[in-house]
Amino acid sequence: MQRPSLVVLKIGGKVLEVPSELQKALQYFAAIEGPKILVHGGGKQANHIISALDIEPKMLNGRRITDAATLEVVTMVYAGLVNKTVVSQLQALACNAMGLSGADGNMIRAHKRIVKTDDYGFAGDIDEINAAAIQQLLDLGFCPCFCAITHDAKGQLLNTNADTIASQLAVAMAKGYDVQLQFCFEKAGVMTDPDQDDSIIPVLTPSLYELHKGSGAISGGMLPKLDNAFAAIDAGVSAVWIGHLMALQTGAATKVTAT
Amino acid sequence: MQRPSLVVLKIGGKVLEVPSELQKALQYFAAIEGPKILVHGGGKQANHIISALDIEPKMLNGRRITDAATLEVVTMVYAGLVNKTVVSQLQALACNAMGLSGADGNMIRAHKRIVKTDDYGFAGDIDEINAAAIQQLLDLGFCPCFCAITHDAKGQLLNTNADTIASQLAVAMAKGYDVQLQFCFEKAGVMTDPDQDDSIIPVLTPSLYELHKGSGAISGGMLPKLDNAFAAIDAGVSAVWIGHLMALQTGAATKVTAT
Repeated sequence: MQRPSLVVLKIGGKVLEVPSELQKALQYFAAIEGPKILVHGGGKQANHIISALDIEPKMLNGRRITDAATLEVVTMVYAGLVNKTVVSQLQALACNAMGLSGADGNMIRAHKRIVKTDDYGFAGDIDEINAAAIQQLLDLGFCPCFCAITHDAKGQLLNTNADTIASQLAVAMAKGYDVQLQFCFEKAGVMTDPDQDDSIIPVLTPSLYELHKGSGAISGGMLPKLDNAFAAIDAGVSAVWIGHLMALQTGAATKVTAT
Repeated sequence: MQRPSLVVLKIGGKVLEVPSELQKALQYFAAIEGPKILVHGGGKQANHIISALDIEPKMLNGRRITDAATLEVVTMVYAGLVNKTVVSQLQALACNAMGLSGADGNMIRAHKRIVKTDDYGFAGDIDEINAAAIQQLLDLGFCPCFCAITHDAKGQLLNTNADTIASQLAVAMAKGYDVQLQFCFEKAGVMTDPDQDDSIIPVLTPSLYELHKGSGAISGGMLPKLDNAFAAIDAGVSAVWIGHLMALQTGAATKVTAT
């Protein structure tokens, strides 16, 4: 039996920060037919609250450590302000959005990242996605909208990377659905030269990825995003697309595939 | 056919502010058998964020005006920090909580309070509770946990009184359920003398209420709470209880009834 299609759209970066860009992205999501799931980050919007509350930003290897005070702020901003803004705007677009953290309905269970040498605080690594419960919500016609907060089922909320949530959600749902995973951000796609829009890689295979990593053409924040994308493909997701809104709409975004 | 029972528990005041009190209230809620709904406020927890962000508190007739900046903060604190803290702690107590604002799944639609002479800003008066959708979640075994944020279905979030949400939820669900509405706060019940614990009114009827209002024994913040309670009884809610946790557990809280 053919699996029904499901779109998992992750929005982040400037798309979330500029209201007109967010509105366009939500119009795109609202217009997608059939079952769909939205995942959003919200990183920079937390920064001004963190500084207003005089919380000292703690960094380790270029990554923020989520101490208890920072966890409170990201819970407020991601699960509160950003999530409910997104949900209310989707509702106005006749999309029956339902905002969720991983704690709600025990949808995403995680554990506090194991301390080897570096302690990133209340950062969560995902243990289990509750695909059955998510499918129940989809069957009722709701569009789940996940923020980047999970829980450990023992009362602890955890800050979790939104790209990772999107790809692991896509993987978990791939057992029952033909899943298209889309990463929407401010760049047109995966590019070999960030200053040249025409350097988009239309199709990225594992061997091409190794090549571009080796030459340094793909680097930085794109690496974990692409590692997530390839892991999702390997685990049964049908296709992963990376690009800005217009590129996703026209099919000009980078398509990540196994071969 | 007998309607199944449903408990709607509203927690607020110091119960929300003191972690050990919150934990006890959540243990009580988690232990309730059958379908149940939690509603929480969160007023005072927003105050320190409001002052840290240098938002000038605007008051009118002793009530806070929800300007745009204040709405952002209460959305963060109520729908984010407080709601997700409550949900994750309930999950740890094996209660399958699902946190919701009125925007999520279009559960509670409201409108910005009409300006006659006084403009309270983004304060919402409820138009419609989506009882069918709430029942669908209850049927799936979820325990909805509502914060005091609603929406107008046109993209605007609204700050809405949590007592009002609790009583209107109870009324909307009373068509399909035998609803017990419980208001849990720091006082033992409705008292004729706030300094005398033994002045609790065990049963409060409309005529007794008029009597105590006339004498000034019941006044202030208790009045809208009791107006809500009597409105709920009139509209089909089976019973309304008001008191602190222990009083609710032992049945010593004030019971509001029609006769």
